[in-house]
Amino acid sequence: MLVRKTLSFRGVMFIAGHHFWWLAAWMTLMTSLYHFTHWKMLAIPWLPLSVVGTAVAFYVGFKNNQAYGRLWEGRKIWGGIVNSSRMWASMVNGFLGKENKADTEKLVYGYIAWIYTLRSQLLQPTQWEHVSLRHLFGSFSVNRRKNFGVGMYEEEVAAIEMKKYLRGFETGDHFANGATHILHQQTQTLNMLYDQGKLDVFKQLELQRVVNDCFEHQGKLERIKKFPLPRQYGSFSFLFVCIFIFMLPFGIVGEFAKLGDAWIWLAIPFGMVIGWVYVVMELIGDYSENPFEGLPYDIPMLSICRTIEIDLLNMLGETDIPKPVQPKREILM
Amino acid sequence: MLVRKTLSFRGVMFIAGHHFWWLAAWMTLMTSLYHFTHWKMLAIPWLPLSVVGTAVAFYVGFKNNQAYGRLWEGRKIWGGIVNSSRMWASMVNGFLGKENKADTEKLVYGYIAWIYTLRSQLLQPTQWEHVSLRHLFGSFSVNRRKNFGVGMYEEEVAAIEMKKYLRGFETGDHFANGATHILHQQTQTLNMLYDQGKLDVFKQLELQRVVNDCFEHQGKLERIKKFPLPRQYGSFSFLFVCIFIFMLPFGIVGEFAKLGDAWIWLAIPFGMVIGWVYVVMELIGDYSENPFEGLPYDIPMLSICRTIEIDLLNMLGETDIPKPVQPKREILM
Amino acid sequence: MLVRKTLSFRGVMFIAGHHFWWLAAWMTLMTSLYHFTHWKMLAIPWLPLSVVGTAVAFYVGFKNNQAYGRLWEGRKIWGGIVNSSRMWASMVNGFLGKENKADTEKLVYGYIAWIYTLRSQLLQPTQWEHVSLRHLFGSFSVNRRKNFGVGMYEEEVAAIEMKKYLRGFETGDHFANGATHILHQQTQTLNMLYDQGKLDVFKQLELQRVVNDCFEHQGKLERIKKFPLPRQYGSFSFLFVCIFIFMLPFGIVGEFAKLGDAWIWLAIPFGMVIGWVYVVMELIGDYSENPFEGLPYDIPMLSICRTIEIDLLNMLGETDIPKPVQPKREILM
Amino acid sequence: MLVRKTLSFRGVMFIAGHHFWWLAAWMTLMTSLYHFTHWKMLAIPWLPLSVVGTAVAFYVGFKNNQAYGRLWEGRKIWGGIVNSSRMWASMVNGFLGKENKADTEKLVYGYIAWIYTLRSQLLQPTQWEHVSLRHLFGSFSVNRRKNFGVGMYEEEVAAIEMKKYLRGFETGDHFANGATHILHQQTQTLNMLYDQGKLDVFKQLELQRVVNDCFEHQGKLERIKKFPLPRQYGSFSFLFVCIFIFMLPFGIVGEFAKLGDAWIWLAIPFGMVIGWVYVVMELIGDYSENPFEGLPYDIPMLSICRTIEIDLLNMLGETDIPKPVQPKREILM
Amino acid sequence: MLVRKTLSFRGVMFIAGHHFWWLAAWMTLMTSLYHFTHWKMLAIPWLPLSVVGTAVAFYVGFKNNQAYGRLWEGRKIWGGIVNSSRMWASMVNGFLGKENKADTEKLVYGYIAWIYTLRSQLLQPTQWEHVSLRHLFGSFSVNRRKNFGVGMYEEEVAAIEMKKYLRGFETGDHFANGATHILHQQTQTLNMLYDQGKLDVFKQLELQRVVNDCFEHQGKLERIKKFPLPRQYGSFSFLFVCIFIFMLPFGIVGEFAKLGDAWIWLAIPFGMVIGWVYVVMELIGDYSENPFEGLPYDIPMLSICRTIEIDLLNMLGETDIPKPVQPKREILM
Repeated sequence: MLVRKTLSFRGVMFIAGHHFWWLAAWMTLMTSLYHFTHWKMLAIPWLPLSVVGTAVAFYVGFKNNQAYGRLWEGRKIWGGIVNSSRMWASMVNGFLGKENKADTEKLVYGYIAWIYTLRSQLLQPTQWEHVSLRHLFGSFSVNRRKNFGVGMYEEEVAAIEMKKYLRGFETGDHFANGATHILHQQTQTLNMLYDQGKLDVFKQLELQRVVNDCFEHQGKLERIKKFPLPRQYGSFSFLFVCIFIFMLPFGIVGEFAKLGDAWIWLAIPFGMVIGWVYVVMELIGDYSENPFEGLPYDIPMLSICRTIEIDLLNMLGETDIPKPVQPKREILM
Repeated sequence: MLVRKTLSFRGVMFIAGHHFWWLAAWMTLMTSLYHFTHWKMLAIPWLPLSVVGTAVAFYVGFKNNQAYGRLWEGRKIWGGIVNSSRMWASMVNGFLGKENKADTEKLVYGYIAWIYTLRSQLLQPTQWEHVSLRHLFGSFSVNRRKNFGVGMYEEEVAAIEMKKYLRGFETGDHFANGATHILHQQTQTLNMLYDQGKLDVFKQLELQRVVNDCFEHQGKLERIKKFPLPRQYGSFSFLFVCIFIFMLPFGIVGEFAKLGDAWIWLAIPFGMVIGWVYVVMELIGDYSENPFEGLPYDIPMLSICRTIEIDLLNMLGETDIPKPVQPKREILM
Repeated sequence: MLVRKTLSFRGVMFIAGHHFWWLAAWMTLMTSLYHFTHWKMLAIPWLPLSVVGTAVAFYVGFKNNQAYGRLWEGRKIWGGIVNSSRMWASMVNGFLGKENKADTEKLVYGYIAWIYTLRSQLLQPTQWEHVSLRHLFGSFSVNRRKNFGVGMYEEEVAAIEMKKYLRGFETGDHFANGATHILHQQTQTLNMLYDQGKLDVFKQLELQRVVNDCFEHQGKLERIKKFPLPRQYGSFSFLFVCIFIFMLPFGIVGEFAKLGDAWIWLAIPFGMVIGWVYVVMELIGDYSENPFEGLPYDIPMLSICRTIEIDLLNMLGETDIPKPVQPKREILM
Repeated sequence: MLVRKTLSFRGVMFIAGHHFWWLAAWMTLMTSLYHFTHWKMLAIPWLPLSVVGTAVAFYVGFKNNQAYGRLWEGRKIWGGIVNSSRMWASMVNGFLGKENKADTEKLVYGYIAWIYTLRSQLLQPTQWEHVSLRHLFGSFSVNRRKNFGVGMYEEEVAAIEMKKYLRGFETGDHFANGATHILHQQTQTLNMLYDQGKLDVFKQLELQRVVNDCFEHQGKLERIKKFPLPRQYGSFSFLFVCIFIFMLPFGIVGEFAKLGDAWIWLAIPFGMVIGWVYVVMELIGDYSENPFEGLPYDIPMLSICRTIEIDLLNMLGETDIPKPVQPKREILM
Repeated sequence: MLVRKTLSFRGVMFIAGHHFWWLAAWMTLMTSLYHFTHWKMLAIPWLPLSVVGTAVAFYVGFKNNQAYGRLWEGRKIWGGIVNSSRMWASMVNGFLGKENKADTEKLVYGYIAWIYTLRSQLLQPTQWEHVSLRHLFGSFSVNRRKNFGVGMYEEEVAAIEMKKYLRGFETGDHFANGATHILHQQTQTLNMLYDQGKLDVFKQLELQRVVNDCFEHQGKLERIKKFPLPRQYGSFSFLFVCIFIFMLPFGIVGEFAKLGDAWIWLAIPFGMVIGWVYVVMELIGDYSENPFEGLPYDIPMLSICRTIEIDLLNMLGETDIPKPVQPKREILM
């Protein structure tokens, strides 16, 4: 998550600066070609282009909307995890009372273990994320992930006391989904407490409902992670922008040619700017649609997990509390 | 579901390449006609066309939005089935305990049987799906379904051990809806367990609520399957695109004629590209609006079912677990 | 509900063909007038028209969106009724057991009676539906309702065994709302079963919640029926389209006049097509906004009711089951 | 609520006819000025205006969307009140049985008292409603409210038997919010019935949940009433339309001037129509955003309240039932 | 919250007047430059600009929509807090009865303490709010916050009797989140009442559910506060408007140059107005997206809190009730 109100010039360049190069190349190529050949085919009428421009702006806008929806839904679900964590800790504390301190701790620690496990699972790259792209595109993204994404927080992640939180839990690889496994054991602990008479059936079921909510939260996040913005929608948005930019110099050159030959070169900067606006609109959606890539535009999962950890340890009355995660390079993960 | 971030050139051609042919034919026909006859009626003013172009882009955008909504809602409901499956297995396991292993198994196996049955039912073609079209259009889609859709996974589907999962269930054709029948028997099993004193009334009702959620999930999916995007909306979107493309060469030829006779042929490629952008926008919605057709743009039901199966068998402590479904030809079903 | 993927030519004409006549008349009138008089006022500049065209397309798009929302919400609620029906029948069956067969039947039959009663109530025309229009418009719609709408299924409707389903229910006219009355008696039956000790309080309340959901479903459908798309929104959409089409020939004639006098007649077909696109966009929303009019664009309530009936009779173990409703003239009601 | 499908000419004039006058004045002034002075500044190029026109149409469309959302949400909540009323009456009736007739009556009457009280509270004008405007604008709206709004139903309102419905309730002014007070007493009555052993704790809580739903409904309606469409959004929509219409004659005159001097006067009617379309789009949202003003575009609260009253009295088995509210002057309140 | 229907001229200037200055400067600079140099590059064709103008209007519209969504969601949650407060007070009162007056008071007072604490926490500035901007921008906003925002109500805030409301609660800084701490103690109080036999388990859990709802409300508000409108979306909206306004004089001057040299100065006012419309559209979203900044566009939290306080004290039967908060300078906080 970017934490600065308005991106600095450097920030803008960081996100979309490199696209100026190929736009410049393409505009210059076509303008020069026209300048030296005066092929009329390089100066097509602008009007048909304008219809395409509007249609493409619509389509990209639609995609941006959906991408935003995915990001925001992801954040909402993590918000739901925060809320469930507080209900859980508060009720467990209240229902079990001071005489069952160990059980309380086990249930609350289990929650913390679950969120950190879930976070790691969500960061596993899928086939359609930027870091899985081939060639230069992929390695570019891998670098960003390392230097401006999750990579910046390796130290903090290493310091998480998973051992403490998972004490008493069965761990191991024979479960396909580790986070599910933890929740499953929470159910079993609740049942054991019922069998031991520490919880009556009503309170057991009330707590079980929070576990069920956690199953919901987890499943919803996995849905966003495992089901991309349908690629037929996403790919063509990219393609349409390419088509528009491909045709752009033909139209721009035509319009500037009317000013006379000397001014034809103005088509280059103006074409670049118009093309760049379209590229950036496409990019924004493209980087927001998968909110668990480990890149700077992600939902700040680590920071949210830490907030939960602090709150829950507070409720347990512990005093050795970790510090909140701070943004680095104006990026919060 | 397509699993590649950006479609390759071949992928784009696979989806929409064949539309270039008739666009080329139509543009060439009209341009030639103008070239040889110079009928002014072939070169109408562009401006009125541009209003139609904008209005049609709006309308198609609206349809795409709704189609996306249907697809995404379908995925959400399947996500809900995943979540319910985990709650179900976890609670059944916990509530019944190790001493009622057979009952636990029956209830959990029943869930797996239900999802696979539901999947088959959802794949039955309806009257308004692509495979039900007449003539060439239909057989084209039937082929795609076989070679790039559900057809690719026949082996995996055949290997599902329905017999094991349906052990102890009454099967047969006297029920109009097989999936409903399975859920109905889950209710009866829960009731029997209550009668036998293995579940108290509170836990019975808590589990019954999950069965009720399954009735919800199933009904919602059937709603999407059995109620198309209203055909008055869908058909006219198609028709409007046809009308726009019909009028396109009239307008384009007019604009290019201004460049002089030699350049008139440029109207062909430019007209094709503009027309193609509109056709593709229409196509994307058209292929996304029915997400259970068995075609490559479907929700990957088989893969989701398998994930559930793996999770639930894990929770039962079984060791002979099937493998996740892998994409074939960059398509996951 | 139209059940054909893409409307045939006849289908399109059926919906919107008659609008060509007055469009033709208007365009011809104005073009001829210009041809013979050359009044410049008939050839106003196109540009101002184009702003109006865009604004109107926006506005109509907005209305179509809301109309679609009403239709889709209606379908969702009917889907909810399907889901509730299955929960109801399954739980009633399970909770009451085989020893209370008569009670089970009464409760399940009551559900079927309720849906058919609800359907009839929703088909009573309101003041703002097409069949309530005055003069020709109204009688045209009344005919359509008879020949292409609910009228086609009179036989099927007559065959519904309401007497069987309402056995044991108090009927009569002293209740303003018959469907509410049936649900109210369901509550009373549940209470009686509790008093007789056939249901414990927990199961009674669980079933009562389904009755409450039915109150919800019914009330939501009545809301859509009794509260139109606010007429200040709907009427002006129609009026704006009229204004645009009124001004259209002025602008179109002006543009075609530039081609020379011989080609002026081309303004007629082109004007007709552009006008028709706007009329049809307006029509689609207009016919979808009230989904219980008994016209071909309705939600297929009869077919849904029948599906529920079949499912519930199946669950009761009956063997004399009615057949699903089939589309007639490619329309399903 | 307007109850006529398509507004008559008079209806349109009633809503927006008076805006023609100042539009006519402004267009005539500017056209005459140009006619006599030929100042070129009065004939600015149309194109920049068209960008503003599109942007403003967007913005107004956005506002209309939100206004519609407020209106529709309000109607949904009132629909929820209808649904809760039926659940309430049906359950109270069933749970308390015939032997506690007086208690049943008190609880059901209390519901009716609550809705009528809520309705009056919602009709108190806020600072940002039309009737609170200063000068002519305000008195114009006050008149409309009297002659075409809530004022038309004073007789019906006076006839409501509040005394009967509030029998046994504590009334008085020491409560800031009367409707809350009634609900609060419903809670207390339920508690008393529990204390007297007429309701067990499960049924008490089930009924309490309906009271809680009523708190929800009331709070949601108050939110719509007390929080306007944020004025920064609403005011600028109005201002943008003013700016566009201010600039309109400059552009229109320019375009018509091209036709020659004689035709310049055509700018007046065309400018008026274009301006009027924008004004009306703005007006529609403006009058729909506050659905409890007592004006003709309101949610018909009186009619809904009466429907509830009839239903509940029916359920109590009373025979002296009031009649439904009928539209007056094609307006239903 | 602004409470005036239509902003006065002063109100408009207050919000966006200062932007006229730099727009005037920029337009004048470019127009003069053209006037004296007649560089054709200052008079580029308008058409390409118009595509950018449309695309930017789209994008800004999208952002405004999301900003509105955040504001409205915030208001809805505060509305939820109002509703929960009434349920809480009503149920606590009813369930505990008159014999446990002190406990009732503690629980209800705790609610009031919680809302005021939550309000203060939400007003802590984050890094991306206006008051955290650097240089002049920041101090400008700090002043507005003081003179037209929360600063105006310092007296009222100081008068809140937190001591009374927090009597019996543990306070202190060892909790990272004070509001959570209060809710946590509510859970413990409920548990204590259960242990003392003043509440049975069902009523305890029913009240606990309200506490859980409060955890939800709080978490949702914190989500809006702590997660900005993603800065990649927000920043580029600002940047696109800047780009458009940068290019605007080039295009406007070109169009006005066609009228002849004398009229070129008209480009200044018209350019200013068009630019200003875009700036204002951007501003509206910018100021609405963070609804807890303490600025005049905020959700009026103080006023809502006071309403709750009044209602709850009313329910407790207290007579010394504070007065509702009144708007100052037509702004309600």
